[in-house]
Amino acid sequence: MIIILRPGHSPAERQAVEDIISHHGYRSVPIVGELRTGIAAVGDGDKETLCQCEAMPGVERVMRVISPYKLVARVAGHDPEPVRIGELSVGGDRLVVMAGPCSIESAESLFGIARAVRAAGATVLRGGAFKPRTSPYAFRGLGVEGLKLLVEARAETGLKIVTEVMTPETVDLVAESADILQVGARNMQNFPLLLAVGRTHKPVLLKRGMSATVEEFLMAAEYVASEGNPNIILCERGIRTFETATRFTLDINAVPLLKKLSRLPVLVDPSHGTGRWDLVLPVSRAAVAAGADGLIIEVHDRPNEAISDGAQSILPSRFNKLMEELAMVAHAVGRTL
Amino acid sequence: MIIILRPGHSPAERQAVEDIISHHGYRSVPIVGELRTGIAAVGDGDKETLCQCEAMPGVERVMRVISPYKLVARVAGHDPEPVRIGELSVGGDRLVVMAGPCSIESAESLFGIARAVRAAGATVLRGGAFKPRTSPYAFRGLGVEGLKLLVEARAETGLKIVTEVMTPETVDLVAESADILQVGARNMQNFPLLLAVGRTHKPVLLKRGMSATVEEFLMAAEYVASEGNPNIILCERGIRTFETATRFTLDINAVPLLKKLSRLPVLVDPSHGTGRWDLVLPVSRAAVAAGADGLIIEVHDRPNEAISDGAQSILPSRFNKLMEELAMVAHAVGRTL
Amino acid sequence: MIIILRPGHSPAERQAVEDIISHHGYRSVPIVGELRTGIAAVGDGDKETLCQCEAMPGVERVMRVISPYKLVARVAGHDPEPVRIGELSVGGDRLVVMAGPCSIESAESLFGIARAVRAAGATVLRGGAFKPRTSPYAFRGLGVEGLKLLVEARAETGLKIVTEVMTPETVDLVAESADILQVGARNMQNFPLLLAVGRTHKPVLLKRGMSATVEEFLMAAEYVASEGNPNIILCERGIRTFETATRFTLDINAVPLLKKLSRLPVLVDPSHGTGRWDLVLPVSRAAVAAGADGLIIEVHDRPNEAISDGAQSILPSRFNKLMEELAMVAHAVGRTL
Amino acid sequence: MIIILRPGHSPAERQAVEDIISHHGYRSVPIVGELRTGIAAVGDGDKETLCQCEAMPGVERVMRVISPYKLVARVAGHDPEPVRIGELSVGGDRLVVMAGPCSIESAESLFGIARAVRAAGATVLRGGAFKPRTSPYAFRGLGVEGLKLLVEARAETGLKIVTEVMTPETVDLVAESADILQVGARNMQNFPLLLAVGRTHKPVLLKRGMSATVEEFLMAAEYVASEGNPNIILCERGIRTFETATRFTLDINAVPLLKKLSRLPVLVDPSHGTGRWDLVLPVSRAAVAAGADGLIIEVHDRPNEAISDGAQSILPSRFNKLMEELAMVAHAVGRTL
Repeated sequence: MIIILRPGHSPAERQAVEDIISHHGYRSVPIVGELRTGIAAVGDGDKETLCQCEAMPGVERVMRVISPYKLVARVAGHDPEPVRIGELSVGGDRLVVMAGPCSIESAESLFGIARAVRAAGATVLRGGAFKPRTSPYAFRGLGVEGLKLLVEARAETGLKIVTEVMTPETVDLVAESADILQVGARNMQNFPLLLAVGRTHKPVLLKRGMSATVEEFLMAAEYVASEGNPNIILCERGIRTFETATRFTLDINAVPLLKKLSRLPVLVDPSHGTGRWDLVLPVSRAAVAAGADGLIIEVHDRPNEAISDGAQSILPSRFNKLMEELAMVAHAVGRTL
Repeated sequence: MIIILRPGHSPAERQAVEDIISHHGYRSVPIVGELRTGIAAVGDGDKETLCQCEAMPGVERVMRVISPYKLVARVAGHDPEPVRIGELSVGGDRLVVMAGPCSIESAESLFGIARAVRAAGATVLRGGAFKPRTSPYAFRGLGVEGLKLLVEARAETGLKIVTEVMTPETVDLVAESADILQVGARNMQNFPLLLAVGRTHKPVLLKRGMSATVEEFLMAAEYVASEGNPNIILCERGIRTFETATRFTLDINAVPLLKKLSRLPVLVDPSHGTGRWDLVLPVSRAAVAAGADGLIIEVHDRPNEAISDGAQSILPSRFNKLMEELAMVAHAVGRTL
Repeated sequence: MIIILRPGHSPAERQAVEDIISHHGYRSVPIVGELRTGIAAVGDGDKETLCQCEAMPGVERVMRVISPYKLVARVAGHDPEPVRIGELSVGGDRLVVMAGPCSIESAESLFGIARAVRAAGATVLRGGAFKPRTSPYAFRGLGVEGLKLLVEARAETGLKIVTEVMTPETVDLVAESADILQVGARNMQNFPLLLAVGRTHKPVLLKRGMSATVEEFLMAAEYVASEGNPNIILCERGIRTFETATRFTLDINAVPLLKKLSRLPVLVDPSHGTGRWDLVLPVSRAAVAAGADGLIIEVHDRPNEAISDGAQSILPSRFNKLMEELAMVAHAVGRTL
Repeated sequence: MIIILRPGHSPAERQAVEDIISHHGYRSVPIVGELRTGIAAVGDGDKETLCQCEAMPGVERVMRVISPYKLVARVAGHDPEPVRIGELSVGGDRLVVMAGPCSIESAESLFGIARAVRAAGATVLRGGAFKPRTSPYAFRGLGVEGLKLLVEARAETGLKIVTEVMTPETVDLVAESADILQVGARNMQNFPLLLAVGRTHKPVLLKRGMSATVEEFLMAAEYVASEGNPNIILCERGIRTFETATRFTLDINAVPLLKKLSRLPVLVDPSHGTGRWDLVLPVSRAAVAAGADGLIIEVHDRPNEAISDGAQSILPSRFNKLMEELAMVAHAVGRTL
């Protein structure tokens, strides 16, 4: 950390900064410029607490040198590490496509969609049993009944299943059924939930919060890893910006950036990232071309009657076309589907 | 809801839209313009689900006419409704100032700050026992021990106490000690938590999510109200924007807007809203001038040694000056402190 | 336009709205719902002015039904229209790549870069002679001398040239030398400049403003077209968001969306869109996969000594590799390079 | 500037960084930490160009220590400097309120509004003769005719006049009539325009760009000052964020922050900053409470028939009430109106 002193600081103010630095376990190294004096805090001290010294009278600002995540960082010269889900591997040469309805609505609809996405080449079935909804008056999912339907769909199709978990106390329940635990965008900084999924050994699909920076996203992953669960899959799903023509702005830059900064696999959710079914196909191609390790896509057999997210769900027939196009883009960037 | 049809839609596409409208319990009223045809869905049907028809082939877009919150809305011609906390009233003529440290760190520090803010005119003591932190390596609060210290501080000073609750299963525990349950910005859309605090009768201080629109903020309040708890205090605490000179951008527009749209009292948090102790004073004055019903402010006796949020905490002496200045602004806008 | 009346409006307030509607050349069509009454303004009146009626006492809000651009809109069922630059065509099957230094610095450097990008397959040379710079103390370009160097580079390499024009009064000067007039992001709403380039017949490369919505971007294009110049190439170059890990957030959603809404070709600038040379390659591939008609890329032979934008410029050797990879992605989406 | 080297950099990469540092006129001072090595560039070299070294292979990132504005900065211990407009002073104890219509529409309307705002206590008349409009089909102002009407209104009322200038070549024309030259938000980074108004001696009202950071805003002021014109008035007018309930988000934090960082007076525009006439009053009070040196407000006698910005214009009667309320808030913060 480097602490920049205000022009005209007093010797006592400077001394106070050096005292705080050593109080927190660091050594002070002065940097004397023409217009400003800085003091580097060198060593392995208590970073979070030292930051507070920004409030001291002699301090202009505090500059952090090192990003605070460690377990999920990519070590220079090391390869990324795929996450294994049974015989599947997320983050290897072969892309993984997760597909299915936003909410699980009925056995008939779920099974039909599951069969269709499997035939098209998806290997994981998505479907919400517990649904976070902006309105308290909206459908919040079938709950445990939905989990049972997912398990049946897995038995019939062989697809792995991913579904969202919303509270620490339901983590064990959901983990009994699901192959992958999804932490939704609205819960990316629900720290008790992150710790709870971190205490399982299940793979976790962690979606980026809609206003989370890349650093905060990796810190959320660090929470999961800090409890001993290294099996984390990151998912870029669009951030909130001033643009209203699309529901969110898919941050395509984040895909290669996350691959550089972290050892974790990176998926993209073009359904939430655009909010429009008619943009899902081109944006999915873009995600693969940017280096994503896979996609998670909302597919519905009757989008206009869907209980949630119909406007961004695609028909199975369109999903089939999407998989054909993705195969070609995957090949162009040295991957397979 | 008004559904705008695409130019060149077929009669079958239009019929499909009218069928969906009646399927969801509405009546169709056509609006024929020069360049577009719209169909209004009139009546009291299932709004959330009808929205999905944006995915239909003949539909250009769906325009919502009415905001979806009801219980927390301000009814035309009705006054706002203060929230009572024992003998205190939030939302009346007298402003309510909540103050205290970000985290509870020790008995000595907490009691000293409590006495100081009380002497300056605060009526509620804030202090975090359970702390959401971006890094898993940062201090996460004293937990139950912190709650005990708060209760002792209340006994000694007579201040009411407000503290954050982070999970549904700890709501009862926190509610035993606290006078006001705080739901933090990162949990504004933690829907199970909203429902859990909604099932208590405790006043709830609901902080706006850092990327929540005013409508989403009111919908979160509606969640709490939908479970039978009408005692909700809204708190504007800064939104995330492109500006990095301040930690967040305090949305001053939201203060009078929330007062217009909702019957609920509105507080402002200038500490998080600016992230800089040297801006807390002028922005506090602005909040009161804009019509806020009170403030929640971080005060620390040694900000540069604070475990969290030191850079935005003010000294008790500065808090005293702030209260004097606020009293004058309050008077200028017809309120008291 | 649809005008929603406030609940509890008086008959006189409603009459006033209907009077304004007919005053501006429209016909009123009432839409009576359970909770709100709306009045549609039907016909071909003065839209901009009618919008002002949002200020009327009986009005809750005004909803626009139709986007206000016409000349640049894509007519349903019609193909997009390529822009011709001599024998080149932007927006056809073959992608167009524009490359070169941010600023023109010297003849030697420019000619070297020009030869290198041409060898790699670029067909247009970019280079700034007049440079908008955030600081008045930064290099502002070689001006007319820079234009001369561009013309020489064209003579030697056969590349077309694109360069920025910053004021209405220099449009003719720049148009004498350049094949394409670039309007920079900071000038996207410099309306006198848009009108001035609209009065030439030169192709215009219009960059999206860093905080412009897709609709505002198309309205800026409409300005150019409204003066009789239909030869407009849109360029997505990243928008300003809360994310600071990259200089801007490249809005990949905008690429297919602009192709849907408009008849104009769409380029992507991955250099400004990311601000990091090490992200240019994957994001370029993503742009092509999303359907972009080409790219504009900053290439410099000694990026670390560049006068501007060195951090986002790539070496000619890396550009060569990029073109090879793009060729494969282009092929995968049915285009050529 | 401090250059952080990548972990695992080679000695040659480090040497290259030190060479560049000395090449640009600085001296290298190494800072060796546990996990990273930094090199401070000390002295008075070429900052803009050194920044480009972020592209070098051994460099992780470049951290700027000092803000790049000088002429407009507030020197520690010095008071802010008011700007004089004849006998008026902007930035002194007495607040300055500028008021008038968005566009000048007719002599009758302008003179009526001018008399009304003067009676209420405004000292400057605002009114647009040259209007930037998002749509090419909207009214763009009366031009020279509008300037003449402003001059007549000044003669009649004694109000000073402020009006927008949009191109470098019309600066002299506008400066002949206006007392204050307004540079609009969309032109905040129209650098040729900034230089042109910098070459006059007229006071300049510089509005913040809708996506400009505080630092960029001050750099734009630095442009004006760099040409010899120190008479600059800053104006916060709302920034673009994700919130759509208001037209822009007025950045109240920026008001005290600009006063700290700069010697220039700071005005607030609550009309554009909110976009809603019914929020203008409370937000005006907030601006004064936060320390603004004045306001610029849109007033129209028939807002619902206004040619532009009717929805955010207030009636003269409401402006009168606003001035009464402002007088009280001004008094509470030690100012007069």
